[in-house]
Amino acid sequence: MITANLPQRIQINDVAVRDGFQSEPAFVPTEEKIKLIDRLSCTGLAKIEVTSFVSPKAIPNLRDAAEVMQGITRVPGVTYVALVPNERGCERAQAAAVDEINLVMSIGESHNLANMRMTCEQSLEQFRGVMKLVRGSAMRVNGTVATAFGCPFDGEQPLYRVLWAAEQYLGMGMHSITLADTTGMAHPRQVEQVTRAFRNAFPDVPLTLHFHNTRGMGLANALAGAAAGALSFDASLGGIGGCPFAPGATGNICTEDLVHMFDACGIATGVDLDALLTVARDLPAIVGHEVPGQVMRSGKRTELYARPAA
Amino acid sequence: MITANLPQRIQINDVAVRDGFQSEPAFVPTEEKIKLIDRLSCTGLAKIEVTSFVSPKAIPNLRDAAEVMQGITRVPGVTYVALVPNERGCERAQAAAVDEINLVMSIGESHNLANMRMTCEQSLEQFRGVMKLVRGSAMRVNGTVATAFGCPFDGEQPLYRVLWAAEQYLGMGMHSITLADTTGMAHPRQVEQVTRAFRNAFPDVPLTLHFHNTRGMGLANALAGAAAGALSFDASLGGIGGCPFAPGATGNICTEDLVHMFDACGIATGVDLDALLTVARDLPAIVGHEVPGQVMRSGKRTELYARPAA
Repeated sequence: MITANLPQRIQINDVAVRDGFQSEPAFVPTEEKIKLIDRLSCTGLAKIEVTSFVSPKAIPNLRDAAEVMQGITRVPGVTYVALVPNERGCERAQAAAVDEINLVMSIGESHNLANMRMTCEQSLEQFRGVMKLVRGSAMRVNGTVATAFGCPFDGEQPLYRVLWAAEQYLGMGMHSITLADTTGMAHPRQVEQVTRAFRNAFPDVPLTLHFHNTRGMGLANALAGAAAGALSFDASLGGIGGCPFAPGATGNICTEDLVHMFDACGIATGVDLDALLTVARDLPAIVGHEVPGQVMRSGKRTELYARPAA
Repeated sequence: MITANLPQRIQINDVAVRDGFQSEPAFVPTEEKIKLIDRLSCTGLAKIEVTSFVSPKAIPNLRDAAEVMQGITRVPGVTYVALVPNERGCERAQAAAVDEINLVMSIGESHNLANMRMTCEQSLEQFRGVMKLVRGSAMRVNGTVATAFGCPFDGEQPLYRVLWAAEQYLGMGMHSITLADTTGMAHPRQVEQVTRAFRNAFPDVPLTLHFHNTRGMGLANALAGAAAGALSFDASLGGIGGCPFAPGATGNICTEDLVHMFDACGIATGVDLDALLTVARDLPAIVGHEVPGQVMRSGKRTELYARPAA
């Protein structure tokens, strides 16, 4: 039985402003980003990944990382996260006083080479440098195990490699771990197995699951993850974004669709779904195109229609 | 734990030619329908809902029901199903020698009125007439409990009403039951509860679950249904179709995406996914527009890409 095992309370994190806007064809103006983050801050999300302190040449869409961090109004209780690729990025993140940085390595060597232009060993070496900078500061560090559920070049990753990466991260002092299905290869049985193995290996480590809907299984995977005891989920407003370097990869799971499903199942997310839907419905105007989210179009399952005249 | 409860083998039924083509803006030529059914017949699907013996005025797209039935090449082991609204339809279905007819009533009274222009009691009366015609013939009868997981006008339906409808159907001699989420209101916890209740009440009755992906939960619902012991699932090639009378309702779950998920989870469907994908990829050309299926675009999760040059 699935639903007997579902947790009573989970947390939802939004990555749209970073993961979504990063791969938009057009630059989203800084003030639009700030306005969106400020609106998201009031919906009950646990974390918002607001930007990435990467080279503006690598990702021009996020060249305004410092301005975004400076411009937003921080809501107590919300963790503002920035992705950081290296020590230089970490210093910029520290200067911007982000609450948490996110370090990402793909355990698929070929994907890490394609995406980060580094071997996994080189990524870990970078991370060690970052952790030295962070030591003693209040800034928290989340380590993302990308391609945890499969690499589009190297295929499914063995479980020990997921646990190996997590162990490396935790050994450096990272505070929490995200297992990311970077190119949408995860399936429910695998999600359940990996999640349970992770929780058995690291019962006290905060775990986030990050799914893509590339093959339509995104919410099924989230359900399987929750049933296996995961308590934190990444998603992207409107379902925008995805990994721009992964062939065929489209779409993070959609935040409001995810909240809608968990709400329906009686799992508290702390998110005000109506408020979130209001924000989501303004997203197409911001990015200039339709977005994959479905509940923003169909309405919530509890929204009834007037009976047709007889 | 979900996946420990998943069945080893399930069956998949396709409804695209009936439920999908019925609501297409353009009439799909009879020979295209026949060709598509014949291709689907060779993929390992258990049932194919090929047409509806309704009034050509009500659904002009399916005015060629008899020609379609006559034109197809029946593959042994595949059950060819036609939807039938009344005795006249039943006689036409008998003349066409369909293997199984499908009778549909929405348990949401308002939806049944809007969709069928009948009260539930009037629908059941029609069904009694149909069952009299069928008695003694080899033709099987499936009863669909539509809006089983919620009516867009009347809201969530109480469990007893689902069981009441099933009991009415079975009392008339119907052979199998489909619980249909006609407008995409089901959620996983509800699916599990309803499926378990049904199986407890009618342990020997073949049960099919029919989901829509209106709010993105389609495959999550199928997973929950399978974990609760459902062994038969409807879906639509490419995810086409939906209920044309239901406001905001779009999209059956996609057959090849469903098979892909179950395959990945190690559940045998009997369907040749590669063959099915080949057929699905020809669907946009047949209907003249893109379709919602995702695996047809992304490829299977096991399809790897060449490593980028270093």
